[in-house]
Amino acid sequence: MTTLAVDCMGGDHGPGVTLVACRQFLDKHPEARLLLVGQPASLQAFTHERASVVAASEVVAMDDPVEVALRRKKDSSMRVAIQQVKDGAAQAAVSAGNTGALMAIARYLLKTLDGIDRPAIATQMPNAQGGATTVLDLGANVDCTAEHLLQFAVMGSALVSVLQEREEPLVGLLNIGEEVIKGSEEIKRAGELLRSAAGAGDLNFHGNVEGNDIFKGTVDIVVCDGFVGNVALKASEGVAAMIIGGLKQEFKRNIFTKLAAAVAYPVLSALMRRMDYRRYNGAALLGLRGLVFKSHGSADVLAFEQALNRAYDAARNNLLDRVRARVAHAAPLLATADQPRAS
Amino acid sequence: MTTLAVDCMGGDHGPGVTLVACRQFLDKHPEARLLLVGQPASLQAFTHERASVVAASEVVAMDDPVEVALRRKKDSSMRVAIQQVKDGAAQAAVSAGNTGALMAIARYLLKTLDGIDRPAIATQMPNAQGGATTVLDLGANVDCTAEHLLQFAVMGSALVSVLQEREEPLVGLLNIGEEVIKGSEEIKRAGELLRSAAGAGDLNFHGNVEGNDIFKGTVDIVVCDGFVGNVALKASEGVAAMIIGGLKQEFKRNIFTKLAAAVAYPVLSALMRRMDYRRYNGAALLGLRGLVFKSHGSADVLAFEQALNRAYDAARNNLLDRVRARVAHAAPLLATADQPRAS
Repeated sequence: MTTLAVDCMGGDHGPGVTLVACRQFLDKHPEARLLLVGQPASLQAFTHERASVVAASEVVAMDDPVEVALRRKKDSSMRVAIQQVKDGAAQAAVSAGNTGALMAIARYLLKTLDGIDRPAIATQMPNAQGGATTVLDLGANVDCTAEHLLQFAVMGSALVSVLQEREEPLVGLLNIGEEVIKGSEEIKRAGELLRSAAGAGDLNFHGNVEGNDIFKGTVDIVVCDGFVGNVALKASEGVAAMIIGGLKQEFKRNIFTKLAAAVAYPVLSALMRRMDYRRYNGAALLGLRGLVFKSHGSADVLAFEQALNRAYDAARNNLLDRVRARVAHAAPLLATADQPRAS
Repeated sequence: MTTLAVDCMGGDHGPGVTLVACRQFLDKHPEARLLLVGQPASLQAFTHERASVVAASEVVAMDDPVEVALRRKKDSSMRVAIQQVKDGAAQAAVSAGNTGALMAIARYLLKTLDGIDRPAIATQMPNAQGGATTVLDLGANVDCTAEHLLQFAVMGSALVSVLQEREEPLVGLLNIGEEVIKGSEEIKRAGELLRSAAGAGDLNFHGNVEGNDIFKGTVDIVVCDGFVGNVALKASEGVAAMIIGGLKQEFKRNIFTKLAAAVAYPVLSALMRRMDYRRYNGAALLGLRGLVFKSHGSADVLAFEQALNRAYDAARNNLLDRVRARVAHAAPLLATADQPRAS
């Protein structure tokens, strides 16, 4: 039996979405148990033999500053859900709440793994191969050293090997050109560290990749600092929204284009299914002494269920031990992150 | 009469594309003159009363290292084209050659303007408003200080006011959230400088924007360091290529989808025209004592002609003087870029 703690109050929609997704999830996974965390009045209508309510009196708002979420709302559903993981009552926590608050509370309660300075947020983006590329970091760390990027690469390798069953996933370093001489000094140093790690058998390094490689599917994992990752993710969402918005506009132009839309509909919806960002919902917070997954705040039922699925797969396949083992294996290289730099 | 110096040998296709584009350009602009720079044997077949050949014996290859282009190929078509601008024989130069080489040669021959530490590359990207967003820097500068970002904002404002006739274009600072507390220390400092510049009447500052705002068209100009700009641009191109590739694949699936494609074709091609990156070809190298425009290396005739159009509009509307005037106006703030920082 694998148990997930679900922050049922988080996200833009709260229990209206999370509870429906929880029921669908339970129906599909007979070996799963859920701890539904939140205000009992909102959750009491939900009954299931493999679900129980864990009371939490407060809710972290989507726009609460990190300090408020961390210091003032000590009985928030987000915090209580993560506490279940810490206490061993659940193997992973899932929340659609405010990312900054989730990361801060998770880090405060669970602490980072030995050898990891900073946790990272890893998400999947669809690629032209019909698969997904895992990208990290996605916004937790704005200034990263080469050692941080190496830590992300090691943790990302563990994540992909567990969730996509690729034993030696291919890692790319996001840069502005393929040549090793490209990029800032820190990026060049990261390239050197990643090559050393590949030489020591810690990971499978492809070399530098560029922004378009995320969507080409050149590698399984793309490593970058959180600022760059966040901009790349949002720019990509922006382009996709612009193209889809443009398609809708063109098809609505007149009666002929509306007829064309009706004819093309099955084809367009097949494409939309393939590109559907909801299928990739559920970002992993990596580097902590416990598993935490973050759903998009705007997730609907399908998307939130997908985040539950990812957390469930990670928990029952022991992602935490796999990350720990990979980090331990790479320890001689990772350890340098804490040392003052020779330069 | 406005004269452009065209590096006819640059790009993936050389004279096969550049000369055809030059003829179309001359046919449309009766007030324009062109200096066709390159190997005379390749250019002699082209005759036009408003075009003359300027001989250059060498060609910078797309993969030539910057040092080779700068130090060894002193009679390259790229360099001779820029030399025409320096000598006053042309008001702007256009090349589809290797970006790194073009920037290095332009900087070496033309030098930067007073008040500008680093030239930047500014390009347009299509947005959902049906217009274009100007983004800079696109790869020339990987580590930028707050002062560099301010310089980019001032130069970008001059560019957009000249080419899009918006007197007070709106500037956004690319960040990972709209709140002023987001981002690295350098980005926060850039936000402060931009607010000061707006207060002094040097530019029109909107505040922070995120990656998707480039394509929403929230602002006219998005300012970022060259690493982030390059990744955002390439990630966007990657998403667009994935979606268009997916559409083609879905429409080719069977006889029914092929029929649907035929019906939907006019609608899809209307969309493609709107999103066509070729329409936005022609990036400006800003901050130099002369105008230089960079075409995509893979540009076809339509795209290269568009780069010529942009260079022509910039030259006849005196972009150089406009940049100089804006930089001079903002001088008290820009000057701090050269000072050691108090922090």
